[in-house]
Amino acid sequence: MSTNNANHTPVTVIGLGLMGQALAGSFLREGHPTTVWNRTAAKADQLVAQGATLAGSVGEAVAASPLVVVCVTDYDAVHGLLDPLGAVLDGRVLVNLGSGTSQGARETAEWAARQGGAYLDGAIMAVPAEIGADAVITYSGPRSAFELYEPALRSLGSGTTYLGDDHTLSALHEMAVLSLMWNVLNGFLQGAALLGAAGVRAGAFAPLAGKGIEIVNGWLADYAEQVDNGAYPALDSTIDTHLAAMDHLIHESESLGVSAELPRFIKALTDRAVADGRGGDGYAAMVEQFRKPS
Amino acid sequence: MSTNNANHTPVTVIGLGLMGQALAGSFLREGHPTTVWNRTAAKADQLVAQGATLAGSVGEAVAASPLVVVCVTDYDAVHGLLDPLGAVLDGRVLVNLGSGTSQGARETAEWAARQGGAYLDGAIMAVPAEIGADAVITYSGPRSAFELYEPALRSLGSGTTYLGDDHTLSALHEMAVLSLMWNVLNGFLQGAALLGAAGVRAGAFAPLAGKGIEIVNGWLADYAEQVDNGAYPALDSTIDTHLAAMDHLIHESESLGVSAELPRFIKALTDRAVADGRGGDGYAAMVEQFRKPS
Repeated sequence: MSTNNANHTPVTVIGLGLMGQALAGSFLREGHPTTVWNRTAAKADQLVAQGATLAGSVGEAVAASPLVVVCVTDYDAVHGLLDPLGAVLDGRVLVNLGSGTSQGARETAEWAARQGGAYLDGAIMAVPAEIGADAVITYSGPRSAFELYEPALRSLGSGTTYLGDDHTLSALHEMAVLSLMWNVLNGFLQGAALLGAAGVRAGAFAPLAGKGIEIVNGWLADYAEQVDNGAYPALDSTIDTHLAAMDHLIHESESLGVSAELPRFIKALTDRAVADGRGGDGYAAMVEQFRKPS
Repeated sequence: MSTNNANHTPVTVIGLGLMGQALAGSFLREGHPTTVWNRTAAKADQLVAQGATLAGSVGEAVAASPLVVVCVTDYDAVHGLLDPLGAVLDGRVLVNLGSGTSQGARETAEWAARQGGAYLDGAIMAVPAEIGADAVITYSGPRSAFELYEPALRSLGSGTTYLGDDHTLSALHEMAVLSLMWNVLNGFLQGAALLGAAGVRAGAFAPLAGKGIEIVNGWLADYAEQVDNGAYPALDSTIDTHLAAMDHLIHESESLGVSAELPRFIKALTDRAVADGRGGDGYAAMVEQFRKPS
């Protein structure tokens, strides 16, 4: 097993989709001896031309490096590849950067431990083009394993973030961010539908939507502080004021003949916050609605 | 009535909340003779110190300038102030930068026409600190009125945007952006609730949430193009893939004992897109769900 020299830790990347190729390319650029493997070997061609070693099998790929990064579709794919190999992880650190669930993270950690290895569950919150630059990549699992290979992992992005020993934290953060992304997209698409009914192109709405998104992004730190403190003084509008605007939105949506379902859902949730006595608070108080079991 | 010299158009600002003060301050800085009025006159003190003229009444304020900007709570407040004045708008352009509805915009335009004035309905998509800098402010109403005072209005923000003759367009855009903001906040707060149940502080989640928001913001132009073209090839994940992740999110939310209501709502909408044959499309195809009357 090799040393932990930041510049020379040999690494293996298994799974060479667009993201896996970006990961391996970044390791190579940072000078890491890089072994790669992919079910369709041709996807390794460009990396091999850049100096990567193409392993002849998954087993050889794992054996080649103390740090093994896997980036495949899901946990089933991870286990489909690694389970047949037996106790091949001996002393190695396995990092899974594919999407997953907290249950998958927990089970994979147990499996890795049985194989004599350590497991870090990771989540990439970036597009392939950001890998090796300002990509945010989270890791959860044993701190010792993270710290051992942190310099190597930093090759993948300046936003390298360790979340804690609990293996499930990366999957949970990924879920939370993914959910946020759906909400942003739904908000944009609902707006595009509303304006589309008034003859406005989505392409004309997009820059204004982007501005609105940026404004909210600038509020998150203050909102987070209120959530953590459990006190929600209105920084700008109160929930009561928002509620009145939600009524307007429902009315506008109905008038223009587009779906008012999402605005009605949001208003129903907000009505409940008011019923809970939160009407005079800021919008951050809505977190209490999301905290309740449903 | 005065000239339209860009640097010297006299302007009046009625309503001196934080936003109104920022508007008047920007006009002053750009060299416009600026008359102000507010129900509580003390809010004008700082502006007067900077060279503004405090009018003795709303009528005097309106009479002082060819361009009259109003920034008060809502249309009721606008009419409460201006209706008693009679046909005071004669030849003037009234710009309303408070929040509103398309109905309010339509009615105010008719009212202004009866008073012999022109009306521009505007919406500020910025915080007061951005006024006079990169604030985005939209205007809708007669193009001639906008063009006459566009140089003066540009004093308020480099993002000055004319939306069209239809007076309702500013209110509709404002609704759409506001709705988007609620969705972003809900996504963040739902994520904060989920992670909070796993012991993660919202303050630790906020930077990652911000990153996710930035990523989606970078997609909007492509999504808008798909919406306008009515074709939704998957740029990244398909709706089917998103649906599987939504199932995971619902399961995680239930496991951690937080509300799964919002994820379930999103999944139900997505299920319908799949039932409509959109499973292999990209997420932008969800716009079709929002377009349907509900």
